[in-house]
Amino acid sequence: MKINDYEKDFFPAWVQSEGEAGDVAISTRIRLARNLKGIPFPNYANEAQLSKINDEICRTIQERPPIEQLALIKVEELNANDRLILVEKHLCSPQFIDQSHLRMLLINREQSVSVMVNEEDHLRIQAITAGFSLEGALGLANQMDDYFEESLDVCFDENYGYLTSCPTNVGTGLRASVMLHLPGLAMVDQVKKVLTALIHIGISIRGLYGEGTESIGDLYQVSNSVTLGRTEADLSGNLRSVCRQVIERERAVRESLLKDSRIQLEDRVCRSYGILTQARMLSSQEGLKLLSDVKLGVELGIIPKINKKMLKELLFLIRASILQKIIGKELSPAERDFYRASIIRDKLKIQEGSGEPNV
Amino acid sequence: MKINDYEKDFFPAWVQSEGEAGDVAISTRIRLARNLKGIPFPNYANEAQLSKINDEICRTIQERPPIEQLALIKVEELNANDRLILVEKHLCSPQFIDQSHLRMLLINREQSVSVMVNEEDHLRIQAITAGFSLEGALGLANQMDDYFEESLDVCFDENYGYLTSCPTNVGTGLRASVMLHLPGLAMVDQVKKVLTALIHIGISIRGLYGEGTESIGDLYQVSNSVTLGRTEADLSGNLRSVCRQVIERERAVRESLLKDSRIQLEDRVCRSYGILTQARMLSSQEGLKLLSDVKLGVELGIIPKINKKMLKELLFLIRASILQKIIGKELSPAERDFYRASIIRDKLKIQEGSGEPNV
Repeated sequence: MKINDYEKDFFPAWVQSEGEAGDVAISTRIRLARNLKGIPFPNYANEAQLSKINDEICRTIQERPPIEQLALIKVEELNANDRLILVEKHLCSPQFIDQSHLRMLLINREQSVSVMVNEEDHLRIQAITAGFSLEGALGLANQMDDYFEESLDVCFDENYGYLTSCPTNVGTGLRASVMLHLPGLAMVDQVKKVLTALIHIGISIRGLYGEGTESIGDLYQVSNSVTLGRTEADLSGNLRSVCRQVIERERAVRESLLKDSRIQLEDRVCRSYGILTQARMLSSQEGLKLLSDVKLGVELGIIPKINKKMLKELLFLIRASILQKIIGKELSPAERDFYRASIIRDKLKIQEGSGEPNV
Repeated sequence: MKINDYEKDFFPAWVQSEGEAGDVAISTRIRLARNLKGIPFPNYANEAQLSKINDEICRTIQERPPIEQLALIKVEELNANDRLILVEKHLCSPQFIDQSHLRMLLINREQSVSVMVNEEDHLRIQAITAGFSLEGALGLANQMDDYFEESLDVCFDENYGYLTSCPTNVGTGLRASVMLHLPGLAMVDQVKKVLTALIHIGISIRGLYGEGTESIGDLYQVSNSVTLGRTEADLSGNLRSVCRQVIERERAVRESLLKDSRIQLEDRVCRSYGILTQARMLSSQEGLKLLSDVKLGVELGIIPKINKKMLKELLFLIRASILQKIIGKELSPAERDFYRASIIRDKLKIQEGSGEPNV
């Protein structure tokens, strides 16, 4: 297992840094849906039409290369595991890898910007940044959008705005989402209360893997649910103020737990740390849950020795597809649990030994 | 917390050594019930008669001191916690400290031999040794019995043998018991099956604290249930062969677990070790359960760094009364859980640091 070999280029930039409000916010994502004029939306397009979209994109990139080079991946040429890795890296949606024929993905070197070609819309431009950074992610996504719109003729209606395959995306075509780590609110049983209140003001809450998934490791995706009749600035402004409130609420709960229930809190995060340093088998779900506790402990200074960047990498490393990539072969569930535990033990031991400061 | 100050004289000898078959057997106890002629059994005796028993014993010890000096403790002069400590050290029964008036306890320096005066019988001579050692414990108890019988007139009937307050003790007045650690059998869900089979051949099974108590930490007391119509040699011979079989069965299960389910076994004992090294609060029951796992891991070489003697001491140290003695004050349940976790962490850390070999 040479995990270190992977690290340089393997991790997306958002995994390798903390970003603003990194104590609560893991990452921020912006997605823009765009469609080319004169060709049916991908779900209604035939093979020739899907091919035409691909050709248009390839031609654009060749004729007028973007400032930052983009890698072009034909999804159907990847094996199943490499496709799953793209999902874990949040470079594409789970739906995109299922229907791989004539689907292309563009990715920049930092893996902060990606473009799905022929997902639900012709173009789905995505940008992902570390921590809480709606401006940063929006900036990256807009840059890529501007690049394509300079060369391509995109469906835009004066009244409705950008036209998209699904009506919920019509308007700005923008979905902004922030991944929040809310162990404090979960501990005092307030997550549901706080988050369901947001639904009434046009905010959606999802689990780790998007729509319809459960929260694991106290991770929640908070995003805007409507785009029609709003400006991009409205949408990201609304989400920004909501996220800021949730982040402050989470911080306040953590502080009050630290003040009023310090021993109980220490007990919980330290036990989780103890199990992670010793377990021989760990499911993905248990691993995330324990790492979630440890992250909380590190943020609150209860477990001071652990490097935050390494911890964020671990949250990502222990996913099934990433494990299989690192080990270099397909693994049974029991083997995955074994290697997952083994990698976590190694990483935490390296950490303890190195005396690396807690950046 | 100066735990180390206590250690020299604080621990009974059986806690500080492993003894034969110490991988499974914790300790062996022999108890002999004796009564003096001409005075009613303690439950029927009045104050004057109970006093007379005490006087007889004191006179004997003064006039003809035993080879090894005995400390004489008047139970009613002890505070509640010091009484509980005597029970945890297995130097007397829980019933003995409840009815303390005119009850005396004699203890040798090693705390391997004790005599309860005016418990259910006038004299209850007890010997306790480390590991599986019926001969050793019987030897110590007989020595003390001989000493008293040389000076005192003891109730003995040619047909029935020694006469005792409770009919189940008539005959030899002997109860022999071995404390066994059976995590392997517990893991494969065979404890009940194996142990209930023994009931039919005159063997009793109890939890850690004697009659009617549940097993904690996979610890079981296996003892003879009848004494009438048998010789001492019969009784201890029967128990010896039964215990040997149970010990062999436990060892075989451990080996097969190690062979067939090594990862699962490692996972369990290492997780328990991880929690013990990190928890900030531990109940007595959880502490014993986790230490039980760790002891199994140490015996099987899965956790090699831990000194077995220290581990046996920990099983003893974490009892409520011992904790209160060490900390030097009465503790609330929450405080006990806190100090219990703290002492375990300290001991395990000292252990890891010292590199002391696993004796």
